[in-house]
Amino acid sequence: MNVQTKPAIVTTGPISGSRKVFSSPEGRPDIAVPFREVDLHPTANEPPFRLYDTSGPFTDPHFSLDLDAGLPQVRGAWLAGRGFESVAPRAVKPEDNGFAPADRLVPPCPAERAVLAGPDGTMVTQYEFARAGVITEEMIYVAHRENLGRAKAAEGAAERRADGEDFGAAIPEFITPEFVRSEIAAGRAIIPANINHPELEPVIIGRNFLVKINANIGNSAVTSGAADEVEKLVWAIRWGGDTVMDLSTGRNIHNIRSWIMRNAPVPIGTVPLYQALEKVGGDPDKLSWEVFRDTLIEQAEQGVDYFTIHAGVRLAYVPLTAKRVTGIVSRGGSIMARWCLAHHQESFLYTHFDEICDIMRKYDVSFSLGDGLRPGSIADANDAAQFAELDTLGELTKRAWAKGCQVMIEGPGHVPMHKIKENMERQLKVCHEAPFYTLGPLTTDIAPGYDHITSAIGAAMIGWFGTAMLCYVTPKEHLGLPNRDDVKVGVMTYRLAAHAADLAKGHPSAKLRDDAVSRARFEFRWQDQFNLGLDPDTAKQYHDETLPKDAHKVAHFCSMCGPKFCSMKISHDIREDSERMAGLEQKSAEFREAGSKIYVDEAAAD
Amino acid sequence: MNVQTKPAIVTTGPISGSRKVFSSPEGRPDIAVPFREVDLHPTANEPPFRLYDTSGPFTDPHFSLDLDAGLPQVRGAWLAGRGFESVAPRAVKPEDNGFAPADRLVPPCPAERAVLAGPDGTMVTQYEFARAGVITEEMIYVAHRENLGRAKAAEGAAERRADGEDFGAAIPEFITPEFVRSEIAAGRAIIPANINHPELEPVIIGRNFLVKINANIGNSAVTSGAADEVEKLVWAIRWGGDTVMDLSTGRNIHNIRSWIMRNAPVPIGTVPLYQALEKVGGDPDKLSWEVFRDTLIEQAEQGVDYFTIHAGVRLAYVPLTAKRVTGIVSRGGSIMARWCLAHHQESFLYTHFDEICDIMRKYDVSFSLGDGLRPGSIADANDAAQFAELDTLGELTKRAWAKGCQVMIEGPGHVPMHKIKENMERQLKVCHEAPFYTLGPLTTDIAPGYDHITSAIGAAMIGWFGTAMLCYVTPKEHLGLPNRDDVKVGVMTYRLAAHAADLAKGHPSAKLRDDAVSRARFEFRWQDQFNLGLDPDTAKQYHDETLPKDAHKVAHFCSMCGPKFCSMKISHDIREDSERMAGLEQKSAEFREAGSKIYVDEAAAD
Repeated sequence: MNVQTKPAIVTTGPISGSRKVFSSPEGRPDIAVPFREVDLHPTANEPPFRLYDTSGPFTDPHFSLDLDAGLPQVRGAWLAGRGFESVAPRAVKPEDNGFAPADRLVPPCPAERAVLAGPDGTMVTQYEFARAGVITEEMIYVAHRENLGRAKAAEGAAERRADGEDFGAAIPEFITPEFVRSEIAAGRAIIPANINHPELEPVIIGRNFLVKINANIGNSAVTSGAADEVEKLVWAIRWGGDTVMDLSTGRNIHNIRSWIMRNAPVPIGTVPLYQALEKVGGDPDKLSWEVFRDTLIEQAEQGVDYFTIHAGVRLAYVPLTAKRVTGIVSRGGSIMARWCLAHHQESFLYTHFDEICDIMRKYDVSFSLGDGLRPGSIADANDAAQFAELDTLGELTKRAWAKGCQVMIEGPGHVPMHKIKENMERQLKVCHEAPFYTLGPLTTDIAPGYDHITSAIGAAMIGWFGTAMLCYVTPKEHLGLPNRDDVKVGVMTYRLAAHAADLAKGHPSAKLRDDAVSRARFEFRWQDQFNLGLDPDTAKQYHDETLPKDAHKVAHFCSMCGPKFCSMKISHDIREDSERMAGLEQKSAEFREAGSKIYVDEAAAD
Repeated sequence: MNVQTKPAIVTTGPISGSRKVFSSPEGRPDIAVPFREVDLHPTANEPPFRLYDTSGPFTDPHFSLDLDAGLPQVRGAWLAGRGFESVAPRAVKPEDNGFAPADRLVPPCPAERAVLAGPDGTMVTQYEFARAGVITEEMIYVAHRENLGRAKAAEGAAERRADGEDFGAAIPEFITPEFVRSEIAAGRAIIPANINHPELEPVIIGRNFLVKINANIGNSAVTSGAADEVEKLVWAIRWGGDTVMDLSTGRNIHNIRSWIMRNAPVPIGTVPLYQALEKVGGDPDKLSWEVFRDTLIEQAEQGVDYFTIHAGVRLAYVPLTAKRVTGIVSRGGSIMARWCLAHHQESFLYTHFDEICDIMRKYDVSFSLGDGLRPGSIADANDAAQFAELDTLGELTKRAWAKGCQVMIEGPGHVPMHKIKENMERQLKVCHEAPFYTLGPLTTDIAPGYDHITSAIGAAMIGWFGTAMLCYVTPKEHLGLPNRDDVKVGVMTYRLAAHAADLAKGHPSAKLRDDAVSRARFEFRWQDQFNLGLDPDTAKQYHDETLPKDAHKVAHFCSMCGPKFCSMKISHDIREDSERMAGLEQKSAEFREAGSKIYVDEAAAD
């Protein structure tokens, strides 16, 4: 890894063992989709293996980091052709930055961008375009991205597709822009893409696409500067975060968000309620529609791609949580519950939902309808409070669609394995197949310190069942703030869970990578095995702890069994003894004809 | 943790936050079953929480470590009453220790034990006793252990049982010795318990009991002494290994095994084929029934509790592996495949299977019928070779039962999520419900360095479906030899996977621990949360990285949200505002009566 010096803190340079490539869909040289390619050992006699790439320009050796200028505007020309208005930005207020005093105020990112807004009566959101039958550049981009840049279905895609179990999803062998459009129009997928986020490399979130993962970042108690906050984003996407939620609170969050947005190649999500609460001094009772509304506009103008809106926490549902083992564990949910009780009124998020939609549509901010009443323990899973809220989220989904907005639905939480499927089935039904976006779920409460794993079990399963995006959990869940290593472990854990889900669903390109890794393993191409894996650095480091020499990277054995015992080597001997094998098969045929049962053939044994 | 000084290398002393207790079944003061108890904060107003304990005497503060003398003989009096013969031990041969020269020979453990053998015509194995209707002390012991020492079903056991999905298993609310006997008699469970292993604290492995985990240990290239090898065992069981497989090879393995056996409170498994291969200089072609037979007797006399026997790798199945992506990945499988091809003969393990049974019965060594043809990649999962071998394992199961032996069946390996269930269903069917013991399975091949997690996903699922024991995988799988930290991570990962399975199956005692952790979490009893979790040390360390002060161990907030935002604190406020809540419920009732829909009640929302 090459850590550049301007500013020193942001990680740039290629991921070990792969190089950045760009590929354009046929006839669209203006659309360049990034991938990573792994060159394999010459003995493999295989072309470079292409990987989906979330890491943005930071891993491009030709990229010159300049946080002040922000990233190249991938979507600039596309957006320019859509007739949006350039509006006078909302004036920044002292409370936007938590009343930070002048001497502690982080300056905003100086990158200049016009603030766009969709005029009434014109199409703004991907949903509106899709419903009108219009294929946007974003749709073409994600189709090419999902196909890993191939011009047609990969060889064997139909067989791999048929090999999976997708529980009624309809993953095609090859993704066309028209398929993307139709999925968005049906509400089954979203491309979170604020029109004020021209730096975005679009990504699609839906049940019939690759399972995506989200990583959360948040500011530290003591902020050493905007570059540190950008680095958190860069670090999370380097290892595979498809989207990033910025859950920062406190001082300077408006200005720091400007640095994050201008340097974010992935969709950024936020929970506007957190900032609204800061603005009223942290007292939920003092929240109001007006301060919330102002915060939505503030963040939408900055380019945030999706907002978590906890509009399903209705006054009537709060008593349903009173007997829970862990009450309300969602921050947003507890804030709104508190507000409802204090005012003895219906949630302003619910009563003003149509106005929220109008604002979000204007910038194409996607809804992530929050599950404020998600279970925080195994005991509370799938309870009345959780499912009452889910029903309301289903109602709100339809209302948001009617307003032209893109919608996904947040899900739990803590759920034992046998109750996971019900979550997916109910969500599909009551939320009309809008994409599901779950936190884990954790499959047991007993392993603090290992909740990335307790939740990866649930995440892989619910991803298989149909969840479109998995929100990561780090080893520090329930205990503290994740550090850099924790973030990487969390992202890696969720990447493998998402991949396990893709594989089980029969996603036509998923198994190609497993097979490539396994061929490398069987052929003792150690470096290929590392490079094709999720984390080349860690794999190589683990290997080198036992067999550090470079010579061992081509050794036909490993440290587990040593040279004498290697089962794979014996397997090779068996395979190479091909004449004898052919002889065996010949004999097998003879014996079968003779009615003997000494040999069985593949068909008979299957 | 208190690391004692004699010898310094073996870890002793209590696990943080818990203390060793012993409990005897009613009327059997001679049977003392160990548990760990966690004392909770006074504000919890709860009795100490009792945990299953695999750690053996090493965590007992009253225990005086003496590796030369070996552990107390828990089973000594029980075995003495069964009329076994004390026989002249087989003479140790130079090849038993890999022809170690005198100056490098590790001396055997001096602990004196008579070598026992079951005379013909008398009952020796737990299976034989069970079939004859006899309840052994081992059966009483494991029943009490599975019940966590309770004298009757725990409160709510029926409800928790009913809450799970057990796929046709029949887990009772309370385990009686008679239930244990009936499960063993039906072949659905085993108690691996060699009559030459009096130090054993018996453990039961079966689908209707708590899911168990196995940890593998192996000798280092350079052995610094027997204590180092014993410490590997002690370390693995300290964190939760229910059984340990000793996969050591090379010099001194006979003598080192004597140290391990005499100091092992858990069942020890081996793969005798590995040692037999050593004895013939590492060349599979030179293996013979005679050297294998001699090795079985050697290890059985030492007290090994279960043997992996790869008798299902038949000559006819070897060609089925030729077109696999990763061939044969089991060491034992590849050795036997090589032997079969070299000699063009049926496997001697298969042709001599009845004699193997006779030897193993004599000492009550349980069969772990090896899956030598398990898939080593996603591509090879559930293929003809794998299932052909499984069919043979089913045939051998019946033959071993007919000889009076206890049997479990080994399973894969690498299997994508959608093909896991078929493995369990086929195994139950063709192996007549003999306990299944799987390695993972890994649900994807793409994450070297994280295969404890790729496999924990599969392990939790297959455990839920009915697998009785899960063989752990460490982060070093495919890459190198696990170190001490890797072993702990592997054990913890598999403990949480096994627990997630117990919970989903509806094991009546599983959810008690989740609820206890969650209550502690909700009530901000931080230390209780750590101590009730799987790994108190790591949880506390993670917490302290952000909030190190002791005062924060009682803080009503944590580092994730800070004091202003804490959702759990708000939940408490909501709950404590009970009068208002009661008022709300009252109003809710009034509204319902009035036909209003402002409030919903729990029943209506469910």
